[in-house]
Formats: sequence, C-alpha cells, structure tokens
Amino acid sequence: MKSFRIRFEPSGKTATVCPGTTLLDAARSVGIPIASACGGEGICGRCRVQVLSGTVAAESTHLLTQEQIREGFVLACQARVSEDTLVRVPVTETDREAQILVEPNADQPRRSRAEDDQGQRYPYAPIVSKLCLHLPPPTLEDPVSCHERLSREIRRRIDTPHIAMALEVVQSLPSQHRAQEWTVTATLATRGDTIELLQVEGGDRAIASYAILADIGTSTIVVHLLDLVTSRTLDMETCYNSQMTYGAELTRRIAYAKRNGPAPLQEAVVGDINRLVDMLVARSSVDRQDLIACLASGNTTMMHFLLGLDAQHIRKSPYVPATTNPPPVCAADVGIQINPCGVVYSMPAIGAWVGGDITSGILATGLSDGQQLTLLIDIGTNGEIVLGNADWMIACAASAGPAFEGSGITSGMHASQGAIEHIKIGRDDSIHIETIGNVPPRGICGSGLIDAIAGLFECGRIDRSGRLQPDRSRRIREANGQLEFVVAACADAGRQVDLVITQSDIENVLRAKAAIYTGTRILLESTGHTPSDIDQLLIAGGFGNHLDGRNAILLGMIPDLPVERIHFVGNTSILGARMAMLSSDALVRSERIARSTTCYDLSTYLDYYGEFMSAKFLPHTHLDLFPSIAKSIGQAQPRGKEHTDR
Amino acid sequence: MKSFRIRFEPSGKTATVCPGTTLLDAARSVGIPIASACGGEGICGRCRVQVLSGTVAAESTHLLTQEQIREGFVLACQARVSEDTLVRVPVTETDREAQILVEPNADQPRRSRAEDDQGQRYPYAPIVSKLCLHLPPPTLEDPVSCHERLSREIRRRIDTPHIAMALEVVQSLPSQHRAQEWTVTATLATRGDTIELLQVEGGDRAIASYAILADIGTSTIVVHLLDLVTSRTLDMETCYNSQMTYGAELTRRIAYAKRNGPAPLQEAVVGDINRLVDMLVARSSVDRQDLIACLASGNTTMMHFLLGLDAQHIRKSPYVPATTNPPPVCAADVGIQINPCGVVYSMPAIGAWVGGDITSGILATGLSDGQQLTLLIDIGTNGEIVLGNADWMIACAASAGPAFEGSGITSGMHASQGAIEHIKIGRDDSIHIETIGNVPPRGICGSGLIDAIAGLFECGRIDRSGRLQPDRSRRIREANGQLEFVVAACADAGRQVDLVITQSDIENVLRAKAAIYTGTRILLESTGHTPSDIDQLLIAGGFGNHLDGRNAILLGMIPDLPVERIHFVGNTSILGARMAMLSSDALVRSERIARSTTCYDLSTYLDYYGEFMSAKFLPHTHLDLFPSIAKSIGQAQPRGKEHTDR
Repeated sequence: MKSFRIRFEPSGKTATVCPGTTLLDAARSVGIPIASACGGEGICGRCRVQVLSGTVAAESTHLLTQEQIREGFVLACQARVSEDTLVRVPVTETDREAQILVEPNADQPRRSRAEDDQGQRYPYAPIVSKLCLHLPPPTLEDPVSCHERLSREIRRRIDTPHIAMALEVVQSLPSQHRAQEWTVTATLATRGDTIELLQVEGGDRAIASYAILADIGTSTIVVHLLDLVTSRTLDMETCYNSQMTYGAELTRRIAYAKRNGPAPLQEAVVGDINRLVDMLVARSSVDRQDLIACLASGNTTMMHFLLGLDAQHIRKSPYVPATTNPPPVCAADVGIQINPCGVVYSMPAIGAWVGGDITSGILATGLSDGQQLTLLIDIGTNGEIVLGNADWMIACAASAGPAFEGSGITSGMHASQGAIEHIKIGRDDSIHIETIGNVPPRGICGSGLIDAIAGLFECGRIDRSGRLQPDRSRRIREANGQLEFVVAACADAGRQVDLVITQSDIENVLRAKAAIYTGTRILLESTGHTPSDIDQLLIAGGFGNHLDGRNAILLGMIPDLPVERIHFVGNTSILGARMAMLSSDALVRSERIARSTTCYDLSTYLDYYGEFMSAKFLPHTHLDLFPSIAKSIGQAQPRGKEHTDR
Repeated sequence: MKSFRIRFEPSGKTATVCPGTTLLDAARSVGIPIASACGGEGICGRCRVQVLSGTVAAESTHLLTQEQIREGFVLACQARVSEDTLVRVPVTETDREAQILVEPNADQPRRSRAEDDQGQRYPYAPIVSKLCLHLPPPTLEDPVSCHERLSREIRRRIDTPHIAMALEVVQSLPSQHRAQEWTVTATLATRGDTIELLQVEGGDRAIASYAILADIGTSTIVVHLLDLVTSRTLDMETCYNSQMTYGAELTRRIAYAKRNGPAPLQEAVVGDINRLVDMLVARSSVDRQDLIACLASGNTTMMHFLLGLDAQHIRKSPYVPATTNPPPVCAADVGIQINPCGVVYSMPAIGAWVGGDITSGILATGLSDGQQLTLLIDIGTNGEIVLGNADWMIACAASAGPAFEGSGITSGMHASQGAIEHIKIGRDDSIHIETIGNVPPRGICGSGLIDAIAGLFECGRIDRSGRLQPDRSRRIREANGQLEFVVAACADAGRQVDLVITQSDIENVLRAKAAIYTGTRILLESTGHTPSDIDQLLIAGGFGNHLDGRNAILLGMIPDLPVERIHFVGNTSILGARMAMLSSDALVRSERIARSTTCYDLSTYLDYYGEFMSAKFLPHTHLDLFPSIAKSIGQAQPRGKEHTDR
C-alpha cells in the first residue's frame, strides 16, 4: 500500500503513514503529544496544527477562524493525509520536546517550610536501601548456605524475622557471594511488614543508591533524581503528560480507556517517565542499574493508568477505584526503566478524586501534625482542597480545569524555562515580567496568569465579570473574533508572535478560581468554620516558583485573609514523595493520613451551582466577603448580574 | 544436511537426528530417559540398548558380553547413528513410560503411624487456600476501593495486618468483583510472616482447591494430587527421574551442571513433574487452574536442580548449598504447570547432604515430638539416618547407592505396578512372590531384594560374603560371565525373559546395606548409645509397601532389635510434605526441625572404611552384634576374611 511521509516541526520527527491517516494519529505514532481535549472528535479545537506544505483533506469547522484557515491551520484529528506533508505543531504544545526547566538549586527544589521541617519530623530510613555486608567465609564448622549466611548477617543489622526474595535472587547468591571474597551489597525494600531482598551485588556498592520520584499530574509530569545516601535531589525534569492526546480531562481519558483498554494510557505515561529518566541518567554519572526505586505520586486516576488498572468505575457513582493504596510492584512489571528488580511505590490516595498527591501534600506540609487549622489548596489540573489539623481532616476536589497549568490558555505553558511567572501591569500600560530562568519569554504559567488577571482587574482593564475594556488600554485589541490583551512578544519557529491573554482565557481562569473558592467555602461551612478561623493557608502546585497571595485574594481564588497567613509551598506532591522515600516512618504515616481523611463530594452540596456562579465574579458577587479588596477598589467597577450569596 | 529417523521401542517415539548423533542424545531429544551413571562417558555400561534393525557405529567395549553383542546390544552413549535405526530400550529403564502404580487406597497412601497421628498433631490450616467472600456492594456511604473492600473482608476472617499481592491481581479486582455480584473467592498463600493474595475469582470457587506434592528423589519422582478442602490424596503417579541420563550419582549430575549450567537438569525434573501432573489432571475432574500450590520435598541437590540453583559448591568441602530453605516461589518462574500464580514451596533441608525429604521424615514420624529414642532410616538413592528425640537430633547421609530403588540392579525396578515386593524362598527351591497390584511381575523392587537376599542367605544359597553357591540350588546358573539366581519369568516386548538376581546385584545390595549399617553404628557411637537403647526403629522409603524387619536384620542392614520395635513407615518424604501443605503450623515446625538437627559428616569418622568393610558381610563380620541371627544360622556358613570390629 502507498504511504506518505509526514514531517512535524519544530521537532523534525517524521511519520510514515497510510493515506487517510489523521495528522493526530500520525503525530501519536512518532510520540508527538498533540493535546486533544475531546479525544479526537473534532469538538474541542485544541489539536490545531499548521500545514506548511502539502495538502490534507479536512472538513470545514467553526473552531478555526478564516485567518487561521488562510494560514494553513487545521484540526489534526480531522485532517487526513493524502500526500507528503510538512506540519508545524504550535510551540506551547511542544514544550516537552524543547528545553525544560532545571532549577539551579536542584538539590533544594522550591524550598518550602515543609521541606525545612522534614529533617526533624521523620528519621532517615529510606524505603529501599543498600547494605554492604562482610560475610564470614564458610568453613566446615560453619557450612550454612549462602542464603542463610546472608540472612543471618542482615538480621544482625535489621530487626526482621523474615526476608522475602524472588527466585532469581536466590539463584544469584553463590556467584555474587564469591565475586568479591564474601563482601556483598544487599538491596533491601520495605513492603508492608516485610523486608524484601531485591538483589545482591558482589563487593561494596552501598553508595550507588538512587531513586526516582515521579509526580504524575493530569497535564504535567515531574521526575526527580534522588541520592538515597546523601538525601540530595540531584536533578529534575518535567514534561507534559502525553495522555493529553487522549483528552484533557480525566473523564475523557477514562472513557477512552474503557473503549480501548488501559494499555495506551499506561504506555503514554510510562513512556513520559522513561524519557525523563533517560535525560536524568544521561546528564548524571548515575548508572541506571543503581536506580533501585521509584515513588509515584499523583491523582487516583493517574495512578490507575500508571499501573494499568481499570479506572472506569472512578467516573461513575459511587466512584469506586480499583485501589487507593497500590501495593509496591516490580519496576519491570510496570515498564519503568530503572533496575528491573527495583520497586515502584505509590503514595496512598484518600479517595477516587482526592489522590496520593494530596496525601503527599498533607505529609509534606505537616498539616496533620499540628493543632493550627490549616487550609491546603493544591492547584494542578484540578484543585484539591484539604481543611483540618492533627485531629480531623476533610478534603474535596474542585473541577478547576488545567488553566493554572497553562493548558487551554492561548499563550499558556507549564512552569518551565521561559515561562512568565510574574507580571506587574502599570496603570500607564507598562508591563514588568519575570520569566523562569531569566530567559526570553515563551509563554505564561499559572502564577503569571494570576498576576496578570489580578493586575488587569486592579487597573480597571477588566470589569468584575472579567470583560476586557478595550477603551482602557492600548494593549487590548481584537483578533480571531475576540478581545485579547498583549503581554509580550516571543519568538516561535523563527517568527515573532505575541503572547496574549484572550477574553476566553480570562473566562477560563475565572471558572477555575471560582471552582477553587467554592470548594474552600463549602468545606469551611460544612465544618462550621469561617475564613477567619484559618490559621494558615497553604497553596501548593507546580505553577510557578512563587505566588502573590494578595493577587490570589484579588482574583477571589482564596478567602480574604491577612497575607502573612498565606504561604506558597511549591510542589508538595513531590516533596511528600521525597519524605516517604527517605523514611519508611513517613510512608507508614502517609497511609494513616490517607485512611483518616474524609472525602467531601462537592456535587452533593445543594446549591453548588449558585455558589459557583457567585464566585465567578472578581473577586466575588458579595464584596463583603473580601473587605480588604472592597476597600481598595471601592464600588467603581461594573459588577454584572448578581447572584444571591448563601 | 542428511538426517535419520531413530525409532525407540517400546515407546514408539521417533527422533530425527543428524548423522553421528549418539543414540543417548537421540533418546534424550524425544524425552526417553536412558540411565547413564557416568554421564555418557562409556564407563558405566548402564545405557545399553538393543539395535533391532539398522547399523550404528560403536567402538568395542568390555562392558558388553559376546552374547549381548550378538543380540545387537550397544552402549547408547557410544553408538553413533549412520542410517534409520530401530532401537529397543530394556524394560526396566522404560517403566516411566509404561503403566505405573496407582494404589487402590490412594487417599490413604501407605497408611503409617505417622499418617494416623497427623490429624491430632497439627491443626488444619493449609498453607495455600481459597476463601469465599461476600463483599458488600459499594454505596456512596461506603465507596472504598475494590482492593480495600476485599482486604477488609479478608482481615475479618484472618488475623493479618498486611496482605501482599502482585500487580496483576490488583488489575483483576474491578472485573472479578463484579463478575458474580460481589461474591469472590480469594486464593491466599502463607509466605513467611506474610499472607499473599495469589488470585481472585468471581463467585464461590472455594471448593476447587487442590495441591501437588512432589517427592523428588535422585532416581524416582512421586507426585500426589491433594484435595485441600477434604485433605484427601486423590491420586498419585511416579516415574524415574530423567536426570539419570546425566549420571546416576548426584556428584556426576552436579559436575554436568557445572559444565553446562543448571538448565538441562532443571528441565529434566520439571518435565518429569509436569508429565506426572498431566496424567493426574487427565485422570481426574480437577481443572489445572485449581492446582494452586506445589510442595516439593527432596534432597538438597534435587531442590537446587528443581529451582535452577547452582549446586557445584555442595560437592566440595565445606559443602555450602545456595540455600537449605528456598523461599516460596511462583510456579510460573519454576515452570511447573499448575496455575501460573500458584506457589511452589520447598521442604527446608538440614544441610548439604541431608535434605528436606529427611525434615519431612522427622515431621511425619513425630521423631522430634517425643522422648523415645528413635532411629529413622530413609532408604532412597542414598540412605539418610536420623537419631534422636524431642531434645536432640543428629543426622547423616550414607552413600548407599540406588540399589534399593531398583536402580543398578539387573531386574530391578522402583516400587510400581508389577514390581515384586515380597519374596519367600523355600529350602526346596520353591519361590513365593507378591507383586504390587497383583499383576504379572515386571521386575524386583527394594523390599523384594531384601527378602530375596535374606532368603538366599537363610537357606544357604549364598555364603556370609554373599557369594552364590551354585551347588545348593537349581535356580542358580551362569550367564554373561557371572552367576545369577532366577526369581521368576516375565514378558518383555513380547519375549519371555527371566527376572534374576546376579552376583553383582548381590554385591551392590551388600554395599548399600553396609553403608546404612555403618552410618547407624557411627551415629549411635558418637552419641554414646548402643543399639538396645533404640526405642523404635523406623524405616522409610518408597521401595515397597512393606518391609520384613526380620529380613532387614538378617541382611545386617539394621541393628538386631526385637522386631516389634521396627516399623516400616513408607514414603515419609511425601507424608511430611502432605502435613506441611495442610497445616502452616507443620511447615513452621519443619523449619525448626531443619535448624535444630545436627549434621554428622561420616567422612570425618576415622575408621569409616574398616567399619564399612565389616558391615559388608552377612549380617556382619562380628556375629555377636546380631545374637538373634547367630542363634538361628549358627556358625555353619563360610565367613570369608574377617576385619577387626571396633
């Protein structure tokens, strides 16, 4: 059969496909993750790509403007190949293929209070570790087997009645014991109450002991390389989650997996992790065989996909996952390319919609340790909210969408090299921006978006319902049938393009912040608290290196508290995973946290919709909920239609 | 390249091989186990086969008589193929391909005191079992995961803090839970201190719960099919160990494995077990998927080969095995064709040369439970001897050789259908024989040999050094250059042949019994005991269904005790395995037995050779050690040269 070559820029990857293949499938076939919120049904318009040469067959769609069509844009899921073709994939979707963020202080990632406290809270005792043992050589007086000789020595060092091991480990003992004159290094893993011997190496290899931490978000994957001996984070990498090609929302991906089985979703996320691990290994002096463990932290659905579990029942009431506390499993069984006998652990989840990443957050922030009433908001693709202290904890998931991760935002990107993470808009239309890595801007990440929209509101460039006011700024213009605010210019594939915030982007962000605020308000109300009872409000997430608390209040994303009670704590999903990897006590503690936290299902709240609609205004329909904002902005701005506040 | 077809009778199997292939390799290639004590070096003469048509290239050898050469006999290891050939493999070596023993009372195999006591001694709690659970269907009030829902219910029935499981088990939960409306059957295995969930089936499958017991002897393999619910042994099968083709002696097989790796030895024994399991499954209504466990009992080297472990260090001082207590392993990893997630357990061994079969024997006989001084002799290819009681146990291995298993004996065979297991020789040359299964005789098994040689001695047909006295019996004749005693006639491949005991066979048996007696005597002496201190003498082994105690004394195999203290206890290797399979307490007990039994190395005894030479006489050089025999036979018989008795 005839086949055509489809080349994708800027990666340069080329797919060879049959006539009639969609550009989306062609891109998937060579591992280019084009976002598709609708899962390839031509509905969301997220998968648009630009055909630079060649002709493709595509039906007309209202999702592209006339200008875009003139420039060659098509929906990749609807465009079918009919000859050799050159395609450009827009820059924000190809970040993962381009340069990505490596923080200079990688061993102290986003140092937070949580991280600072860690050393004191849990003793150093990694859940997987290497132990060098000098075995007494056998004699006629002491002829015990290799197996017993080793077990005896391990039991002298570790209090364990029983040491489990696989057959191949027993098979290796006679040669490994004799390889370096009865000096061996045992790799030991904690599995529940059992100690498992994963491998035995000849000689002293105790120092070559590393682990991978994987924060698996719906949109973004972050992998850290951890030295288990020094407790130092050596390096990190991040990328978009390739599963986006099966839908931006979890429910769409679950539906895809129900139709096609969980394998494509598992292959996508395992492939991402493996590529990040490849990069970390290539940049370091670490031997892949010395990566002896992986601890994954993510929402419950992500963990299902990672482990190839059927997630379909998570989507339907009563929302029953296959597991919330996956057992440690063999790396080879999952396909993660560390030492094949290494163990993949999962942070235990609280429920179907409040995952192990939130357990990590509670662990990392110490929320469950003190008496202070703490509100933890983890902003990822969804917003998960936890309220409580050492005595009780309640959590909910707010359907915020991925706006704060830069997904679904015209110039959005995740918090990596070149992302605008801080924006200050002057009343004179001047703009001050700061980018991650201090390099030219490539897009806007979550913290930049919060700054921008709060700034636009404060300067009167948008009204309280978020509408752009074109008469108030020269930076506001019309393009592609809607208003947009120009933040900065950037280079994309050799061309100068503008980074903008469109009217749709603003609406996206307002929906996201409203969902988070509504969840917070309902948790407070259901436990009989008011915002002023909150002793500390912690904001977690990987959307930038810092967050302006006052801007978050201005936006109406969080309650109006004194800013000194607000702390940005960074990516607590990976911080908690780090703690659990370095201390088996912390892992045990995380299981207790997961079991003892109550899940609140927001959909059961009677007037959820009313609350949500009120929260979509800036900062809220009822300004009396935001006295510090009311004072500064007065009642000058238009408010739009009001809703009753309960 | 040209190839030839070599057909083997009586199995009818045909090998297609290249010119120059030896008949031994050709036979191996189609799974016909021809014995080769020397491992194919043309030294032992055990591999002789008869070429019925076709010509093979073979060098001359003194191991075949002129008559044999005329009849077409060759050594299979030395004969090279040069055209299509028809070969007959002598019957005693092909037993395993022919009918084999199924005892009519298979659920109570060789009922012994040990077996009778079992019910009382250890509570019924199989190490692997199925548990039917009616799970509460999930609701919004109880939305816990499938994993937790199941674990919660298991913990209600079994006191275990932690339940281990493989990833594929977790993966199966959502569908299995819903397959039969939340009624499931969990297969649970004890692994050290941990309970492991092996599989989950939809619906109530608790009754379909079976296990395999495998007694892996150097020469013979016995497999039992056990119903774990009723504790009944449903059926059994036995065959020669195909490893014989790599050498009759353990040391030769270890040397072979050192040169070629352990894989061929593992494949041989696993193949044997699988063929026996196939037969048991074919004859029963048991689904192979419901075989959820296998417990193997055998000497330490056999367990190494079963598990693919390097056994080479067992052979050399200080005799260090890879393991004496192999961890439970996955059936699929070993290649045993039961349910792939089933567990293969091993009886823990006492040392390099005193294996798990002896631990089984101690467990089965209750030797370690009482205060009676007990001597246990397990007669297999070697003779292992244990002396002790609840307070102390000492064990040794005597190099008896496989004579009592019928191996290396002209008309010998193992204790299966058609084996002569009881022989009474009258002073008038009359012979009374009993065969297993009451069918026409096919060979002579161990108990028959003991009866025969004791009878020949008692009637004066052999002298005290075992020499046949041709003038004393019409049944003694010369053939193939030596004297032989004709026991009976049998049909072999349509021809009438005589079952005989040759002068060499007698010498073989005398060496074997001398090794056993010497070991016994040294254990007694080293612990400061005399034979009369022995409260009970237990003889174990699979060499027949009963053993005549007085004949064993007459032979000088065991000390001269009142016969009421002597008990034949059958195959205690499999009886102990059965107890351990049916009671986790018994398995734990077996580990304690293995740890607390002292191994005595007979080679360290200064005058071992002198003791052994004295014991080669009938019943012994020093008749005063056998007063009951001395009385009956007087001093009439010639004694041969005497050795000093210590």
